[in-house]
Amino acid sequence: MTNQIVLKSRPIGLPTSANFEIREVNVPELANGQVRLLPHTLSVDPYMRGRMNDGPSYVPPFQLGEPIMGGGVALVTESKAPGYPVGSYVMGFLPWQQEIVIDAKGLNSVDPAMAPLSYFIGILGMPGLTAYFGLKEIGKLQPGETIVISGAAGAVGIVAGQLAKIQGCRVIGITGDEKKKQYLLEELHFDGVINYKTTPNLDLEIATLAPSGVDVYFDNVGGEISDAVLSQINKNARIIICGQISLYNATTQPMGPRIQSLLLKKSALMQGFIVSNYASRFNEGLTELSKLLAVGHLKYTQTTVHGFERLPEALIALFEGKNLGKLIVEL
Amino acid sequence: MTNQIVLKSRPIGLPTSANFEIREVNVPELANGQVRLLPHTLSVDPYMRGRMNDGPSYVPPFQLGEPIMGGGVALVTESKAPGYPVGSYVMGFLPWQQEIVIDAKGLNSVDPAMAPLSYFIGILGMPGLTAYFGLKEIGKLQPGETIVISGAAGAVGIVAGQLAKIQGCRVIGITGDEKKKQYLLEELHFDGVINYKTTPNLDLEIATLAPSGVDVYFDNVGGEISDAVLSQINKNARIIICGQISLYNATTQPMGPRIQSLLLKKSALMQGFIVSNYASRFNEGLTELSKLLAVGHLKYTQTTVHGFERLPEALIALFEGKNLGKLIVEL
Repeated sequence: MTNQIVLKSRPIGLPTSANFEIREVNVPELANGQVRLLPHTLSVDPYMRGRMNDGPSYVPPFQLGEPIMGGGVALVTESKAPGYPVGSYVMGFLPWQQEIVIDAKGLNSVDPAMAPLSYFIGILGMPGLTAYFGLKEIGKLQPGETIVISGAAGAVGIVAGQLAKIQGCRVIGITGDEKKKQYLLEELHFDGVINYKTTPNLDLEIATLAPSGVDVYFDNVGGEISDAVLSQINKNARIIICGQISLYNATTQPMGPRIQSLLLKKSALMQGFIVSNYASRFNEGLTELSKLLAVGHLKYTQTTVHGFERLPEALIALFEGKNLGKLIVEL
Repeated sequence: MTNQIVLKSRPIGLPTSANFEIREVNVPELANGQVRLLPHTLSVDPYMRGRMNDGPSYVPPFQLGEPIMGGGVALVTESKAPGYPVGSYVMGFLPWQQEIVIDAKGLNSVDPAMAPLSYFIGILGMPGLTAYFGLKEIGKLQPGETIVISGAAGAVGIVAGQLAKIQGCRVIGITGDEKKKQYLLEELHFDGVINYKTTPNLDLEIATLAPSGVDVYFDNVGGEISDAVLSQINKNARIIICGQISLYNATTQPMGPRIQSLLLKKSALMQGFIVSNYASRFNEGLTELSKLLAVGHLKYTQTTVHGFERLPEALIALFEGKNLGKLIVEL
C-alpha cells in the first residue's frame, strides 16, 4: 500500500486543500517494461491549475478521483525495463504518489553527477526549455533591445531574464515581492525591477526603466500588469504569451482593453506557446542550458517544500507568489 | 485658383461632413522636379480615420486646416520632372485638390493600357498588396486550411478571399449586407458567407461553415465579430490584424474578453501589420497580382462615387459599410 493525492473536487477560483484528498492504494507487481519508483522531487507548476478544470485546454483535464500528475524526478527501486537499472534516476510525468509502478516508456534517465536532481524538472526541464524556446522562437531578441518579463522571479522568468542578459539586452523584471526584487537586481543583475504591488505608478515606472520602449514582452502573468507593459511597446514588438497566472483562478471571463488596434498600430506580434511544441528540439535547448550552467553564466534558485503531503499546499502557494524561482516538493 | 478639401475639425466618433471644408487655394507655378496634376480617381480608405485623430498612430495625423491626403491616380498636365511627361498618368499620395502641383519624387508612373486607372489604388495598389502580404507573411496558408475573412466584401477582403481560394483553402467571409453576401458566394465562389447583421447566432454559423475550425483569421473589423471567430480557432492558428474598422470611431477604449489565455491554449499567433512594412517587396506582390488579374484568376469590383465634393461623404460611407469592393471617387 502507498499514499496518493487525488483531485477530490474541481476548484472554483483559487484551489484549496479541500480540492485534494490523500488516499491509500495498492501498488501492483511489475509487468515487463515497468519500473518501481521512489519519487525524489515532484514539481508544482502554474499550468496544472488549468488541468484541474473540466473541459479542453492544451492538456487534458485531471479526472476526479484520479491522482494529480506532474513532472518529477525519482529513484528506480525495481526494474523490468532494460536501460533503467535499480539505483538509477529518471524524470518524467509522475502521479503524486509515494511509491509508483509505471511504464518506463516516457521516462528519461538523468545523471545525478551532472546537476542537482531537482534541476531536471527546472532549469534543465520544462521551465528552462520554456524560457529558451519562447525567447528564441518568438522573442527573436536582438542585442540592445529592451525586454520586460512579468513573473520575473518565477521558474521561467529567472531563466528568461538571464538568457536575455547574455544576449546583450536591457532586462526589466516585474515581480510582487521586495525580496524577489533584490534577488533579481543583485544576484541576476537585471537592469531594472518593478515591484508591482508597491509601485505608485506602474506605467510610469516601466517608462522610466525602459526609456527606449519595450521591444519584447515575456508574459507569464497577464491581466493589468500586461496592460501596462503593452502600453509601452515599440514598433515590431514581440509579445511572448507563456503564462497568464493572474487569470488562472478567474471564475468569469476576464475582460480588458481590446489589444488588436495596438498590435495593428505597432505591427506587433503576439504568440502563445507551450514548450511541447518544440519537443523535437529539446536536445538543442538542453545542450545550450547545460553549457551555460556549467560555465556559471546561468544562476538558478529554487524554493523547496518538504513532505509529500504538502504538495497541494505548494501548488496553492504558486498562485500567492510565495516562491522565489522554481517551487519544488522534496519527498 | 483651385478647390481643396481640408480637415476643419477632428471628429468625435463617426466623422460628419462638418469635419471637412472646401476652400479655394492658389496653385503655384512649377519648380524644377515638379508636375501639375489633374486627379482622375481618389481613394477613401478606413485607415484615414486614424489620421483624423490627433496623436501618434502608424501614420502621422492630418493637421487642422490642411488638406486631406490619400492615394490617387492623376493625369500629368504640365511637367518639369523628367520621366513624367504631359499626358502620362501617375499614382501616389495626393492632397484632396482639384488641381495639384507636387514634387514628382514619390509618384509612380502607371500604364493605363495595363488595367483601369483606378486599379492602381486598389487591387494593384495598397489594398491588393495588403491582402497579398498579410496572407503570405502572417497567414502562411496551407492548402486545405480554413480561413475566415471579416470585412470580406471590402477592398482587401475580396482580394484576400480569392488569393486563399487559389491556394486551395476553404474560405468563409463575414459581411453585413445580403447583396455583398450573394456577390461573394456567386461571383467570387467563397465556400461560405455569413451576414453578421441577420444571422441568429454568429458563433454557431461560423462553427457550421468551418466544421474543422479556423486556421487563419484575416481580421479587417475587430470587435464582437472577432470574438466570435476567435472562439473557433484551431491549434497553431494565425490571426492577421489588418484593420479594426468597427472600432475606429470608438470614443472610449474598447473593452472585450482578454485573448491572451486563448492564444496560449491554442499556441496561436496574432500579428498586426501595415503594408508599408513590405515596401521593399512591392514589386513581387504587384507582379503576382497583375499576373493573376491578366489570366482572369482574380476578379475585382469597385463602388464609384462621382464628384470631388463628395469625397467626405464617400469616406464616411466606408464606416457604414456601403461599398462593395473598393470605394473610389472619380473626379
